[in-house]
Amino acid sequence: MASIFSRIIAGEIPSYKIAENDHFFSFLDINPLHQGHTLVIPKLEVDNLFDLPEETYMGLWKFAREVQSAIHKAIPCNRVGVAVIGLEVPHAHIHLVPINNIHDIDFKKPRVQLDKEGFEKIAAQIRAAF
Amino acid sequence: MASIFSRIIAGEIPSYKIAENDHFFSFLDINPLHQGHTLVIPKLEVDNLFDLPEETYMGLWKFAREVQSAIHKAIPCNRVGVAVIGLEVPHAHIHLVPINNIHDIDFKKPRVQLDKEGFEKIAAQIRAAF
Repeated sequence: MASIFSRIIAGEIPSYKIAENDHFFSFLDINPLHQGHTLVIPKLEVDNLFDLPEETYMGLWKFAREVQSAIHKAIPCNRVGVAVIGLEVPHAHIHLVPINNIHDIDFKKPRVQLDKEGFEKIAAQIRAAF
Repeated sequence: MASIFSRIIAGEIPSYKIAENDHFFSFLDINPLHQGHTLVIPKLEVDNLFDLPEETYMGLWKFAREVQSAIHKAIPCNRVGVAVIGLEVPHAHIHLVPINNIHDIDFKKPRVQLDKEGFEKIAAQIRAAF
């Protein structure tokens, strides 16, 4: 069965899309640690990031850099942190999280509550910063 | 003044070295979240990972992949997680952390206590897995 992320890429499940090209896709995390918390994924469905083919692995980090640049421009923060855990959904994904202190990447933290309009506004701000 | 990491690379401060090449360096985190928690850094001293020149940024992720492969072989774990926070030391660094569940990357967690012999044993195990 296709992962939830493959279904998002296919448009079967809606998402707040940030960027897309032939091989990669990026969208807002629906349970954000901070406004602007974004996921970056390969279209190729592989569970562990480090099991991706070299070219896809490297391309994903290049794409993530472009996405983080837009996030950093659009969202007030000290910098954009990175986390790859990968035990939530069996489809490799990079978390890009705007942070202001060392404890801002903590998946036990209460999540930011946003409605559809709030997510759409943030996604539009990040997309405009590319 | 040179960052603490530049002083580690120069050998002015001792470390439990994992790997090194012309541009990158890797060593055990002295306050590990898990046995085998390793840092991967560029020799170029730049604060924010995303401000590295493209070639260095990409090379760092390629090097990190090689290091994680050795960690994964040497240390029993589900997989190797990734974190880049960067607010602790102003010298770009990637945390590679053996994890078994989603909350294993949490910098508020009590750290694993190891003596010199314990660190040396782990470093030797990871180096042997390259």
